Amino acid sequence: MSAIDETGQRRPVAIAGEHPLTLYVDRREVVTLMTLGQAPEALALGFLRNQRLIRSLDQVESVQVDWSVDAAAVITRAGVGLDAAGEASLDAPRTVTTGCGQGSVFGDLMAEVDRIRLPADARLSRAGLQALLEAVRGRETVYKQAGAVHGCALARCTDDDAQILHYVEDVGRHNAVDAIAGLMWMHGEAGADTVFYTTGRLTSEMVIKCAQMGIPILVSRSGLTRMGYEIAREVGLTLIGRATHTRFLLFSGEERFTG
Amino acid sequence: MSAIDETGQRRPVAIAGEHPLTLYVDRREVVTLMTLGQAPEALALGFLRNQRLIRSLDQVESVQVDWSVDAAAVITRAGVGLDAAGEASLDAPRTVTTGCGQGSVFGDLMAEVDRIRLPADARLSRAGLQALLEAVRGRETVYKQAGAVHGCALARCTDDDAQILHYVEDVGRHNAVDAIAGLMWMHGEAGADTVFYTTGRLTSEMVIKCAQMGIPILVSRSGLTRMGYEIAREVGLTLIGRATHTRFLLFSGEERFTG
Repeated sequence: MSAIDETGQRRPVAIAGEHPLTLYVDRREVVTLMTLGQAPEALALGFLRNQRLIRSLDQVESVQVDWSVDAAAVITRAGVGLDAAGEASLDAPRTVTTGCGQGSVFGDLMAEVDRIRLPADARLSRAGLQALLEAVRGRETVYKQAGAVHGCALARCTDDDAQILHYVEDVGRHNAVDAIAGLMWMHGEAGADTVFYTTGRLTSEMVIKCAQMGIPILVSRSGLTRMGYEIAREVGLTLIGRATHTRFLLFSGEERFTG
Repeated sequence: MSAIDETGQRRPVAIAGEHPLTLYVDRREVVTLMTLGQAPEALALGFLRNQRLIRSLDQVESVQVDWSVDAAAVITRAGVGLDAAGEASLDAPRTVTTGCGQGSVFGDLMAEVDRIRLPADARLSRAGLQALLEAVRGRETVYKQAGAVHGCALARCTDDDAQILHYVEDVGRHNAVDAIAGLMWMHGEAGADTVFYTTGRLTSEMVIKCAQMGIPILVSRSGLTRMGYEIAREVGLTLIGRATHTRFLLFSGEERFTG
């Protein structure tokens, strides 16, 4: 496509794709997500995981994405999941959380926050953080071309290096984080020795999702909200914001940052 | 609050507030919004307006916000609104739209898009656009202090000037646009001779909301997604993105831009 710039010239511009993906669980329609579509199976699983609609990958029989009908079909093992416990969750009051406004959350995420214990022995060094930021910069392919997307990365950082395990960009930052959650399930990865990076803001929901994935360190290019900060303090999550090149702000959990 | 910066110094940082506001319609719980809380009555009304749960302000008897219980209570006129038609809408499949990921939308916004006709005679000049951008810069008070918020403005632009009618910042960009929609209802304003400004991205939902408010020109500091672009073309909305200081990109509806 093209656009007219401020000098009156028409020039080509790249634009991020945005596709509807309707999620069915045991043939029951749950939700339609608008997505770039980089990792639709992982997005479907991660959405169900982060919404606490499915508690374990063991409950899932299969997930199939069919773009010809814009659908992701998740089949659960007999009687487990939505048909049994999830029915109530789906009809429970929705918490519309901050995100870029109003992300629907079924059930009460907050009720579980108290039970979360994040590993105390995780560490992140300054050089590890900078390696992570550099690695992310190398991966922002859609963002560089078209903007209008958020990126999330799951990484393992050493004292002086960082390895990106998964990197997902999406038109919505919650989709990106949900897709990472799905990929972690698909790869059997726990979060304890990882660092989560997001270009998005550190709102309450982002902090809760990260904590629920068992990830002790959350890094963002953006800032944070009060509730994001308060929940991070409550669960003992290390929160680093405004991280760009060599700059950053360490908001909470400073004991994990080794400088 | 304070944070430790990259030099190891602890320094004070401002942080955007984020408060839960549970919306009740005729004593029935609808949703909990996380908000900065600048215009809670307008947010409650605008949410119901933009979700198409209430079609006209005439249907509303009263709206009361009580922060001591984090609640906004909307009472509709007898039998109108949710109890009658809205009941079905509330239980309809949710479209989780892009936004920063997953904004819940009851019912099918897209179904109404075809019926929208935006005024063809609206105009925006280069000087008017620049006056708007300058006026917004002067209003971004929370953003300047704390970041992590989005701002929306409703403005009336002349050939060489811009008057901001409403300006709302919120932790979620959808809350900000919904609050503006509520303010327009409360002030009896139609959108035909106005310009909408948002710091957020031009996703499908943002374009649809703007069109439904009858606003023919939408300006953003950020970029756009493909579906945002396609819907803007379909409804004939003028879409200007990446607007900062003197730079911008005119994506659609160029006939309204007089240069």
